Amino acid sequence: MNDTLLRALLCQPTDYTPVWLMRQAGRYLPEYNATRLRAGSFLALAKTPALATEVTLQPLERFPLDAAILFSDILTVPDAMGLGLYFSEGEGPRFERPLRDEAAVRSLAVPDPARELRYVLDAVREIRRALAGRVPLIGFSGSPFTLACYMIEGSGSDDWRTVKKMRREQPALLHRILETNALAVTAYLNAQIEAGAQVVMLFDTWGGSLAFNDYEAFSLAYLRKVLSGLAKERDGARVPNIVFTKGGAPWLAAIVASGFDAVGLDWQTDPRQARALAAGRVALQGNLDPAALFSAPGLVRAAAREVLDAFGAAPGHVFNLGHGIVPGTPPDSVAALVDEVRTYSRRIRDNATRVS
Amino acid sequence: MNDTLLRALLCQPTDYTPVWLMRQAGRYLPEYNATRLRAGSFLALAKTPALATEVTLQPLERFPLDAAILFSDILTVPDAMGLGLYFSEGEGPRFERPLRDEAAVRSLAVPDPARELRYVLDAVREIRRALAGRVPLIGFSGSPFTLACYMIEGSGSDDWRTVKKMRREQPALLHRILETNALAVTAYLNAQIEAGAQVVMLFDTWGGSLAFNDYEAFSLAYLRKVLSGLAKERDGARVPNIVFTKGGAPWLAAIVASGFDAVGLDWQTDPRQARALAAGRVALQGNLDPAALFSAPGLVRAAAREVLDAFGAAPGHVFNLGHGIVPGTPPDSVAALVDEVRTYSRRIRDNATRVS
Repeated sequence: MNDTLLRALLCQPTDYTPVWLMRQAGRYLPEYNATRLRAGSFLALAKTPALATEVTLQPLERFPLDAAILFSDILTVPDAMGLGLYFSEGEGPRFERPLRDEAAVRSLAVPDPARELRYVLDAVREIRRALAGRVPLIGFSGSPFTLACYMIEGSGSDDWRTVKKMRREQPALLHRILETNALAVTAYLNAQIEAGAQVVMLFDTWGGSLAFNDYEAFSLAYLRKVLSGLAKERDGARVPNIVFTKGGAPWLAAIVASGFDAVGLDWQTDPRQARALAAGRVALQGNLDPAALFSAPGLVRAAAREVLDAFGAAPGHVFNLGHGIVPGTPPDSVAALVDEVRTYSRRIRDNATRVS
Repeated sequence: MNDTLLRALLCQPTDYTPVWLMRQAGRYLPEYNATRLRAGSFLALAKTPALATEVTLQPLERFPLDAAILFSDILTVPDAMGLGLYFSEGEGPRFERPLRDEAAVRSLAVPDPARELRYVLDAVREIRRALAGRVPLIGFSGSPFTLACYMIEGSGSDDWRTVKKMRREQPALLHRILETNALAVTAYLNAQIEAGAQVVMLFDTWGGSLAFNDYEAFSLAYLRKVLSGLAKERDGARVPNIVFTKGGAPWLAAIVASGFDAVGLDWQTDPRQARALAAGRVALQGNLDPAALFSAPGLVRAAAREVLDAFGAAPGHVFNLGHGIVPGTPPDSVAALVDEVRTYSRRIRDNATRVS
């Protein structure tokens, strides 16, 4: 197997910088749109293991990526808790029964992944079989706080006012939700590992909306709680874990020190500063601005080189975007990006070796 | 005159922490909505000095704020350049003629504020008369980069893909727009100072969308250019200046070192870290999460105390939100906030004096 990603996530030397892209299976690919059309809806796609497997593998047919990432939704866990996930056309995810009172929170139970999230585990197993050892499979979950955002608000939000009202007016209730989510996410990720996920990643998409004095208590503390319960290996092989807080740059030092094997960086974060904090002990993943992919391929290559130069040639870098690929991104840009990361990162490693 | 704000912006001692709020005149106030209805549209309101004066003063009638801020739009300058600002119902600002090619950029001219932006200067003069020395008046402008975002994209955007395409494919063209904007913003702010603005603030609302290696070159460099041309006093009185980059926490050290008298902070930024960087030489403004105002008044007071405690009792803090007041905010929350800042900041100053 191509184990470049696994080695980089553990800060071991690699011949080149491994690359995968958040939302590498998605709407910018015509073949994805065709499969989705066939599925009837995004949720049907995510809930049908054969189709989830098909779209997970699509980007690997086009680009020599170093990892596959499970195709799924970040809100599968609260859906399994009975909140009723749905998508209304042109809008983001919504819940039919958002958490609005103590009774709803008290009745919240940690789902049994083998039962309520079996379709995800089936997809993991089917993807592993289809990958046949080409590249590792990354499993993932939304973070306890990010799940809580949608569970309380009932939908996406510009300001998460309902969540933040609960944080002030009923902090114990919010902590109880986060506690339940942490247990549910831990069980969910461990079940993915058991089913075959070789890396797991926590997406803390909305942690960056918290105030300076709330991020630690309401997001990072529960990320650490998940980490403490996570399986660190399976069948003797290490299963590296990654945490990514979008907008987390103000708390970078705390995130890097939180104990995860690797930290995802958005495109505002300076890789040189992150490298200094990580001190060769924590791997870093990122961090090209997804909007850079709207330029001509030659300029995409230049943008990739800027990011690679900023991270440098030392071990412990996984190339990625600073957030997911945006719909409308030209697939040719992605091809140029992946090729340039491969070629140029080999070159800077060779140069570094020659100098030393 | 109540000069508490002016003194705090120059890091001079004050009896309490002055407070004003971004968008303090706005849709959360029923009297504002009544005036806007009378005006017929947001732009008519902004372009009619008598009405702009009326809404500028409305929050001061309700709350003992330490400053008034000119009611206007951040996009008046590109509108004066002939791009055709308009608002479509339920959406943000748009331009009829966004900048899409070299010819459009080459024909871009720096407006003469006395002619094309006279309605703003008339409003400044009328507001000063109406204030009759109660509190200082803050003038403002969008930053060169933030104006360029809307001028190029033609509207708001989640990813500013057109701006970022130009940054890669035609960087000289983008620099030319920013150069023109810097000259226009400098002339505009100096004209506001000449008309009576006693403080000026630059809103770099979208600088935080730039990548780690682009913020300096495409936003901060032009903010400094504006600063270098700004009038620093009028009639012997210092006119303090404030810069605010939303999402600027990753580059806080550079922003604090940029030479502005004061730096606005969003709610993700840790005031203690900012205080250390500012070292008593640069004032700081902020930084309560606007969503905290959706809680009951007693909890709003607690939230205000947390922010005041984080900034501490040393001179050089102006209390504000970390971004504008959100529509739907209860005016009672704002009343509680302003009262608590006044009372509690007096108390922590008294305690600090007693201890020292």
